[in-house]
Amino acid sequence: MDENGRSIPAESDEEHGATTLTRRGLLTGAALAAGAAISARAAKAVGAQAAPDPTKVPGARPQVVGSRSPHETPEKLISGSIGGVTRTPHHELHGILTPADLHFERHHHGIPQIDPASYRLLIHGMVDRPMLFTLDELKRFPQVSRLHFLECSGNGGAAYRVDPPTDISPQAMDGLLSTSEWSGVSLATLFEEVGAHPDATWFLAEGSDAAVMSRSIPMEKAWDDAMIAYGQNGEAIRPEQGYPARLLLPGWEGNASVKWVRRLELSDRPFMFRDETSRYTDPLPDGRARIFSFVMDAKSIITHPTYPTRLEDPGFVEISGYAWTGRGVIERVDVSIDGGATWEAAELQEPVLPKCTTRFRHAWEWDGEPAHLMSRAVDETGYVQPTAAQVRDVRGPGTRYHYNSIRGWRIAADGTIGFAAS
Amino acid sequence: MDENGRSIPAESDEEHGATTLTRRGLLTGAALAAGAAISARAAKAVGAQAAPDPTKVPGARPQVVGSRSPHETPEKLISGSIGGVTRTPHHELHGILTPADLHFERHHHGIPQIDPASYRLLIHGMVDRPMLFTLDELKRFPQVSRLHFLECSGNGGAAYRVDPPTDISPQAMDGLLSTSEWSGVSLATLFEEVGAHPDATWFLAEGSDAAVMSRSIPMEKAWDDAMIAYGQNGEAIRPEQGYPARLLLPGWEGNASVKWVRRLELSDRPFMFRDETSRYTDPLPDGRARIFSFVMDAKSIITHPTYPTRLEDPGFVEISGYAWTGRGVIERVDVSIDGGATWEAAELQEPVLPKCTTRFRHAWEWDGEPAHLMSRAVDETGYVQPTAAQVRDVRGPGTRYHYNSIRGWRIAADGTIGFAAS
Repeated sequence: MDENGRSIPAESDEEHGATTLTRRGLLTGAALAAGAAISARAAKAVGAQAAPDPTKVPGARPQVVGSRSPHETPEKLISGSIGGVTRTPHHELHGILTPADLHFERHHHGIPQIDPASYRLLIHGMVDRPMLFTLDELKRFPQVSRLHFLECSGNGGAAYRVDPPTDISPQAMDGLLSTSEWSGVSLATLFEEVGAHPDATWFLAEGSDAAVMSRSIPMEKAWDDAMIAYGQNGEAIRPEQGYPARLLLPGWEGNASVKWVRRLELSDRPFMFRDETSRYTDPLPDGRARIFSFVMDAKSIITHPTYPTRLEDPGFVEISGYAWTGRGVIERVDVSIDGGATWEAAELQEPVLPKCTTRFRHAWEWDGEPAHLMSRAVDETGYVQPTAAQVRDVRGPGTRYHYNSIRGWRIAADGTIGFAAS
Repeated sequence: MDENGRSIPAESDEEHGATTLTRRGLLTGAALAAGAAISARAAKAVGAQAAPDPTKVPGARPQVVGSRSPHETPEKLISGSIGGVTRTPHHELHGILTPADLHFERHHHGIPQIDPASYRLLIHGMVDRPMLFTLDELKRFPQVSRLHFLECSGNGGAAYRVDPPTDISPQAMDGLLSTSEWSGVSLATLFEEVGAHPDATWFLAEGSDAAVMSRSIPMEKAWDDAMIAYGQNGEAIRPEQGYPARLLLPGWEGNASVKWVRRLELSDRPFMFRDETSRYTDPLPDGRARIFSFVMDAKSIITHPTYPTRLEDPGFVEISGYAWTGRGVIERVDVSIDGGATWEAAELQEPVLPKCTTRFRHAWEWDGEPAHLMSRAVDETGYVQPTAAQVRDVRGPGTRYHYNSIRGWRIAADGTIGFAAS
């Protein structure tokens, strides 16, 4: 079929292409010649004369699934034992979306291979009707789709050190953040289906990975905006993200959005799992600890210009990055080029969505002198992204999660860029 | 590094995993047993006892770039000579985004391979300073990112036939529609840079494919929202979509958003290319023709339930699909289950963005009787998606583009579904 759904002979397009070249050559010969002349000079100037003219050879045929240009090779940064951590290459991305195959990963015992035909989600405990759902049954319920960020609560630990590395990229520093359009069924819908008891206050979410990752979640989140997600960026969720289905808790620390979720148990108390005490808990200086600190506070990161980029020459530079908050929408992002002495409000790229990254942009003329870039997010609750010192004052040196302090980037006179804590 | 940017020994995670299993077994033994029992019965019921328990084996290690589950194999439908047409599998997608590798394609002489290092964009003609831009130069300008649909103006031709096929999927019927987040530089920025003459009224956009696809575009679009796009869904634009850069005209017929764009020439008149007369022009019954009919009128399509899906049993069905308009935002989508006799307003999934697909949803209880589903989009200008008969009355049988008529789907008592024109 052609684009109109009609059948056309196999020759027509070749001929059509040839005819096109001839006809348009006649129509704009002069203009073409002018363009070709300038192009040729430019090509020579950059020594690109060897590059073949793509207009003189038939192009490649499409495939049933497309692929990247061989000149584009984005990669996640893999670390941790058994590769339990991969980071998104922020400095190579535009806008707010993260391609599904570049979404960060944090798993505690590898990526399970699950056959969707044998997948089941059990919901039991303080419910009227314990039920076991197949994937098709989950997909038959009303669907919701929303764009949300997902961030590991341990993201950005390196920035919290008293001596942070300077030769570190936004990917290595804060790569445990990604944004996707998530589709699935609202948890409220499922909890109504099984008849959740009004006195149930917590539920257990259990994954079917080899770590059997388990977390206790307050019921309020289920009635608010939690979902069982089976779709990511339009297609089926990826194995690294919990295929065929995961819990998704918008705006909350990533670990609580249990992947490969197989069981939800309703209760009147939290379950106190190992990962709620040994990990994902914030020790405080006075010996106490913040536990169940789910919500991700407002944070922003500059993704350009940053290490390893080098500014070639003075002039216009668009300072750009992401801002996000687990408490709703980003209200403002301030940018400083003098290490926080003065701030200016950046432009926020529409759409500005709740619990989603917002792209901010700030036009800057670099004069070639040393500069110290910073960004500071303010969310709709009035919360202001703190400095590293302010976070340390409250939480001391022991904390291992929720590193949302202001990040800095020092630009030297030679254009080289290095990380600098606030 | 671990998620906090600290180094941890290679053993710790294995041990941690094992410990987790032990500890959590102790903590919730009873609940686990209950769950396991019910799961076992269910597994037996569906004959899935052979499926290995993913919690008993270490999971796979991640890769630098993720991949789909082997159980998910979405494919574009390839047709046309030299495969010049590929269609997006709408019936398999959720939300509004199209994964970049499933974006529809329509090219007239294949996909050119272009080295970004030798890529140049020439802007000349009625300008003060003819300029040749490298890709890096284009990326240095202020960036814009927006979610927009792209639709081939020939999309849905099969629906315009007096005898449309019934065994056709939304992919085969209307697969020349996709939605992405596009990032690039505003054309207004570039035209200011070269000093566009105030009396320039049209510009030529020329591609560097073997068809040298060329179109004439009114300057108004450049000053409005046109961009040179180099980013798609966060990453570099894909080769099939114009790598390393394409013209993007939000809301206008896809062909005018010239891919692999190499030259823009400003003029005081249209250039009258072959593809503006032999194609992409709408013949009218009185012998005249609509030319430069760029804007895509409001349209909606149901993507579920549709052929080849079969409804297994009566009960709840969410009728869902896309609505879009080249004139701004979708104001309302009406759904009918009785072939257009009565209509009800569907739910619109937020966000509802300008010149972008909007996902609509309508809860329906199928009683097992034959039904005839239809959807009808209304945009912010008050334009109402027409019936096929209404379009034929105005444009007659000869038209080959802009097929935005209402689509219908007949559901038989046995649950089978077939396409039906409005």
